[in-house]
This record gives sequence, structure tokens and C-alpha cells, in this order.
Amino acid sequence: MADFCQFLELLGYEARSIALTYFRSSLDVITKSDETPVTIADREIEERLRQMIASRFPSHNLVGEEHGGTISSGINWVIDPIDGTKSFICGIPLFGTLVAVLRDRRPILGLIEISALRERWIGHGGYTTFNGEPCSVSQCRRLADARLCATDQRMFSGNRLAAFELLSQVVRITRFGTDSYGYALLASGHVDLVVEADLKFHDVMALTPVIEGAGGVVTTWSGEPITDDFKGDILAASTAELHAEAMQMLTGR
Amino acid sequence: MADFCQFLELLGYEARSIALTYFRSSLDVITKSDETPVTIADREIEERLRQMIASRFPSHNLVGEEHGGTISSGINWVIDPIDGTKSFICGIPLFGTLVAVLRDRRPILGLIEISALRERWIGHGGYTTFNGEPCSVSQCRRLADARLCATDQRMFSGNRLAAFELLSQVVRITRFGTDSYGYALLASGHVDLVVEADLKFHDVMALTPVIEGAGGVVTTWSGEPITDDFKGDILAASTAELHAEAMQMLTGR
Repeated sequence: MADFCQFLELLGYEARSIALTYFRSSLDVITKSDETPVTIADREIEERLRQMIASRFPSHNLVGEEHGGTISSGINWVIDPIDGTKSFICGIPLFGTLVAVLRDRRPILGLIEISALRERWIGHGGYTTFNGEPCSVSQCRRLADARLCATDQRMFSGNRLAAFELLSQVVRITRFGTDSYGYALLASGHVDLVVEADLKFHDVMALTPVIEGAGGVVTTWSGEPITDDFKGDILAASTAELHAEAMQMLTGR
Repeated sequence: MADFCQFLELLGYEARSIALTYFRSSLDVITKSDETPVTIADREIEERLRQMIASRFPSHNLVGEEHGGTISSGINWVIDPIDGTKSFICGIPLFGTLVAVLRDRRPILGLIEISALRERWIGHGGYTTFNGEPCSVSQCRRLADARLCATDQRMFSGNRLAAFELLSQVVRITRFGTDSYGYALLASGHVDLVVEADLKFHDVMALTPVIEGAGGVVTTWSGEPITDDFKGDILAASTAELHAEAMQMLTGR
């Protein structure tokens, strides 16, 4: 596991170097067919990380946001080269590169690299580090004390929007615009709760080991574990008590 | 004017030093009667900046978010010690300190100090600097190309919410969670449009000179100049064409 973590540090440095070459530069943005804005950095980072992983672990399977692939049995690497593309495009330094390792369809190792801030979280079940030092979640146990983050209220609709709005009214504060950075801050104890929906598989695989390694709890809204069969909704909390209270409010369970 | 700008640099360094003493520390948060979270840094920064201004310009009037005061004739200084208090509390490095100088009830000089990123914008009618170097807005002229920022969709209600949602559908991207940082990024050409409502006087006085100095346009939603009689709504754009198109969509004018 130590070897894997050291290799994730290398992937982080490489992603950072490419991202900072393009961040706040005046390159045109390429629009994919689904209209998601995506930069050249996105493609170059994924290509470079794929090369590095394939060279080091030739028998492992690779899945990435840009270049596709599907999860197979054995060890899988999942790459989200630029999470928070809107931040990247607006010159906001909160975008990140996410890399996860899956075994038996469960994420067991995660990297959150926030390049422009030079902040890096690496976690597995046992522990999580922030810039090389162990970090841990807050001791927040009650919604009334909780600092809640989400990327954009428009990721919720129907019953989910109503549930999120209710939750937002009882927590201490709600802050939007965080993408993967909200989960990273949860692992370092600055944020207590992240509740999101409509996420993609590659958005979340790296988050689970980082938060669990820091002592937090991550599941779907209905309390199921995060697996490669991910459906889009996620509930991350600093403590089991806070997680239970949030899940009760979101789903009535 | 050069003397004033140099003095604003000093205020920026001082605010940064105090803010970084408390950012991501585990100090308890004090809750004011109106339930806005506000940290000890908030009070200390305002007190220190008031001392520095009073000592250098004893005849000028001082108004601050924390310690009050009202605008009088002559020269007024307006201080918002921590703009983006939610960011500060969640460990997100996008909070800032805002200082404005008003003459004849109009802001003529502004400082946006983003302490945790070590980024500083200073502007007056003539020009704006980012970390000491001149900066300028983008050349974006059409809503369809615009990168739009706002702090939180919940700052809008009724007709304003409907107008903002319409605007959000026609721009290229919308990014939330920016506070004063969105206006600073507009001055550096990374963002093209910031549309907000329900802001306070001290939230906006510093923004106008920074954006105008960088070549942008700032008014209320109905096209009125930003004065000490500010009512809460603001529309900032990189070009007159983009400003006109956004105003048309927001108000029908």
C-alpha cells in the first residue's frame, strides 16, 4: 500500500505540472458533443497518467473520463483529469485531479490533487494524508453545528431538491461551488457534510478512501456503500451520528 | 492617487497577516444577533485597518461592517474585513478583505485582498493592478460566450430569481460560490459577468473602482451607478455590449 501511495504522489505532481501550464492561460476551450466545457489540460493529464500507470502496472485496467474504458475484474484505475472544469475555466483555483484504485469493484485508494493550491490528499482505509501529513475529520455530530457543502443547487430536482433545501435550513451554513474540494476539506476537518446528486462515476471513486481514511463516513443517500455501480447520489459526513441525522432528513430512513 | 494606492497595499498586507493567523485554526465562531457567522479575524482586521487609516488620514470618515459608522461629506473609507465569511469558516481560501475610498458619495479607489491566495487587486478609475501588475477585463461581448459568477442562487427571489435563471440558461457557464472573488476575476479577464442581489453596501464599494479601472462596466441591474445609496443589486460586465445584453435580459430595458 505504501508503494501505491508513493506512486499516487508522483501522479499528483505530474497532473499539477500539466494543469498549471494551462490554468489561466488564454487557450480556447473545446466543447464536447454533450456541451461540457473541457480544456486541453483535461486530455493531456489523462493521457499522461494513463501512460504512467500502464508503464508501472501493465496488468491493471484503466478507466478515464475523457478516454473511456469499462471496469473489469481485478485492479482498476479510475481517472478524472480535471474535476471542477467550471472552476478551471473561470480562473478559480479549486479544480482538481482525481485518481482512484478499485479492487473487487470498491475504491480502496484515492488521490485528490488540487493543483493550483498545491494541496494533495491521499487516502486508503487506514489513513489519509494532506500534503504528506496525517489528517482527520471534525467531531461534528449534529446537523445544527454542521458546515455543509455542495457544488450547485441545480444538481438536485424534485424530491431531492426539497430534501436538500430542508437540510440546508437546519445546518449551520451551506457553501456552494466546491466540487471535489468539499470532500477534501471534509477529510481535513474544515467541512462536516457534503451532500450531492447527479454525479458521475469518475467524480466520486477517489473521494471515498480519502474520507474513510480520515475517519469519515461516505455512502449513497440511502446508506449503500459507494461501488462501481454508483448511481449519482452521495452523502459524506465527518461522524456516524451526523451521517445518520442527515440520512434521516434526506430519505426519512 | 499613487500615495493612496501604496497605502492600500499596506492595508492589504496587514489584513492578510491577521487573516492567515486565524484561517483554518480551530477558534470558535462568534454568532452575531443576525446569525451571520463572523470570526475573530473579522473584528481584528477592521480594528487594525481603522487604526492605520485614522493615523494616516485623521480628517477622513470611517465606516466598517463590524464597527458601524455612517457616510458623511468629504472622504470616506469603507471596510469589509472578511467578505466571504462562509468560505473562511469552511477552510476555502476565496474569502477577502475589501477597502474602498469614497469621494462625493462615489467609490473612487478599491482594494480586494484575497489573503489565503496572496492575490491583491487595487483599482481606481484609471487603472487596476493585480499583484502590482496592470490587469484588464476580457473582450467578451455576447451572453452566449460569457462566464457568469454569483455567490448563491438563494440571493435572488421572485422576479429576480426568474431573471437570473433565464440569464444562466443563455450564458456559456455559471459558477457559484465566488463572493468578491468573482469581481476580482472579472477584472483579470477570467470571468465575464457577475450578477448578484441582496448585497450590503460594504460588500460592493471596493469592487467598482477595481472593475472600472480594468476596463469593465458596473451598475445596478437597472443601469444606475453604484453610490453610497446602494440598494443591493449589481451587474458587472467586461464590456459595454455584454452589460447591455445582460441588462436587457434582467430588466427588459
